[in-house]
Amino acid sequence: MTSLLQPYLLFVGDVSEPGFAKTALGLRDWAGPICVGEMAITADAVATGLPRLSARDAVAMGAKSLVIGVANRGGIIAPAWVPALVDALAAGLDIVSGLHARLATVPELADAAARYGRRLIDIRTPPPGIPVATGARRSGKRLLTVGTDCALGKKYTALALARTFAARGINADFRATGQTGIMIAGAGIPIDATVCDFTAGAAELLSPDAAPDHWDVIEGQGSLFHPSYGGVSLGLLHGSQPDLFVVCHQPGRERMLGSTAFAVPDVREVIDLTVTLGRRTNPAIRCVGAAYNTAHLSAAEADALLAAESARLGLPVADPMRGGAAFETLVDACLA
Amino acid sequence: MTSLLQPYLLFVGDVSEPGFAKTALGLRDWAGPICVGEMAITADAVATGLPRLSARDAVAMGAKSLVIGVANRGGIIAPAWVPALVDALAAGLDIVSGLHARLATVPELADAAARYGRRLIDIRTPPPGIPVATGARRSGKRLLTVGTDCALGKKYTALALARTFAARGINADFRATGQTGIMIAGAGIPIDATVCDFTAGAAELLSPDAAPDHWDVIEGQGSLFHPSYGGVSLGLLHGSQPDLFVVCHQPGRERMLGSTAFAVPDVREVIDLTVTLGRRTNPAIRCVGAAYNTAHLSAAEADALLAAESARLGLPVADPMRGGAAFETLVDACLA
Repeated sequence: MTSLLQPYLLFVGDVSEPGFAKTALGLRDWAGPICVGEMAITADAVATGLPRLSARDAVAMGAKSLVIGVANRGGIIAPAWVPALVDALAAGLDIVSGLHARLATVPELADAAARYGRRLIDIRTPPPGIPVATGARRSGKRLLTVGTDCALGKKYTALALARTFAARGINADFRATGQTGIMIAGAGIPIDATVCDFTAGAAELLSPDAAPDHWDVIEGQGSLFHPSYGGVSLGLLHGSQPDLFVVCHQPGRERMLGSTAFAVPDVREVIDLTVTLGRRTNPAIRCVGAAYNTAHLSAAEADALLAAESARLGLPVADPMRGGAAFETLVDACLA
Repeated sequence: MTSLLQPYLLFVGDVSEPGFAKTALGLRDWAGPICVGEMAITADAVATGLPRLSARDAVAMGAKSLVIGVANRGGIIAPAWVPALVDALAAGLDIVSGLHARLATVPELADAAARYGRRLIDIRTPPPGIPVATGARRSGKRLLTVGTDCALGKKYTALALARTFAARGINADFRATGQTGIMIAGAGIPIDATVCDFTAGAAELLSPDAAPDHWDVIEGQGSLFHPSYGGVSLGLLHGSQPDLFVVCHQPGRERMLGSTAFAVPDVREVIDLTVTLGRRTNPAIRCVGAAYNTAHLSAAEADALLAAESARLGLPVADPMRGGAAFETLVDACLA
């Protein structure tokens, strides 16, 4: 499994547009306590609100990795960034990147990493040696977030559930399957970058045998109903063999992301199909509730919608970002 | 899409055990007319029954590619093979390999390929630039073979159907998704080696828009019920958007290949799940029949079984390897 050293220094470089700094801003929001500061190379770079530090100062504050928190068009490592990245390696930091371009293809970075004994970690690249799935049952408990579509809160729901489990004294781990999730957790496997023969095997590797009372809360990917990514979701479902799943949904989204000829399915359809397919590797699989992204609604509208949907589905329905009583009910149901 | 030049010279090298020459023997059986001969480097190498030729003689007979038809433990390119492979490149042949080791990692081969302007083609490596699937409907007709399990006749069924369609004057192409199929067809994409985000996209690329009366007969992979490979099968199903599918089955096989804790599903279950999932990208999908591998049965036993299963399922059931009236009935149903 990909494994990162924390805490992080967030590299914002020379990028001044917040839309290109989503990784840095997401880490600030979701992993603030493990981010010691930001590193810029121009004065007008995006400000995360964290202290602006040199690599050496960050190391003195405990930083272990520099995370590239920005992207540019093309996903390349800009030549202007390289001296700062070499400085970070010299100061003792690993470099972590989610860009398309691989760090080691920049000769100066490959040389400096070898010279200073640091790692260049490309989050998009799965670790070597992922085995074919066996389907063998594993000990411990597992919860998977699934979706009516892509990009509607599967990561945030899993993070919120894992944190709430932990806050209640439950032994729980968030298991990351995407780039941002891996950076937040410090470990994980980029499931959608695995070779398809090994996707279920990667999911098995991600949530290994554990104590009987331990929960793995696994970040879902894609949707069984997405014409581009259904196979990713099925490999992850089979390999995760979850006991419980939570369906994530964006109320009001009517067409599938990137495939607008396809309607977003009803939550009930997703529940039925996930049970049909998931019971192949865990006959006891069941839906424990749903997580709706209601950011576009007022508090009153959201409360009314969540209550109506909970009544319609006969299951707890909450917005993990809003928290509140509905979310506590969902957590109670998971741990019941 | 990977594309090979035919006809072939089959390399059997120094391998004397037929179990390690399955590719050469399979090509002899399924692509005999496009194999001009075999090339050995020791006298006791496996004999395919084709003429034993030098590279230069094979080229004189029209050969365009040397196909490595043998494997050894570890899937490496044996040092003893290299001089013969260099001779083949010098004689004007491409080299085609399904081994794990990549041809171009052998410096002598990389040098010779560059010097003589020939290609080193690793069948296991998908072509670059596979797009994410769009789910958009394509013109032409498509048939996909699916399975109750792995390795029970999906390739042979698709080949037999495509050939029989062609023999009846129908415009049809066999679309290969695995190594042996690609070697037989001379083109295809190794679906199970694609990155899972692009598996459905690879299937879309494999069977592009075609004339309204054209049939793509697509080689299936894995099984939706296999705990290791279900995601591969779903990506291929979504991307293929078949109008018809044929379920391939091995009567008497009770446990899934490599995952013996899992029972082989009933053909009826496979039909239902394939329709449930396949209608996402082709609402008109339907099962047209089943193909049973009855090699282990007598002719009378096979006939009785096929008739009984046909009555039970209400669909044509045939063994494509036996052919006969049952198979003609299956073909009639496809083309009805």
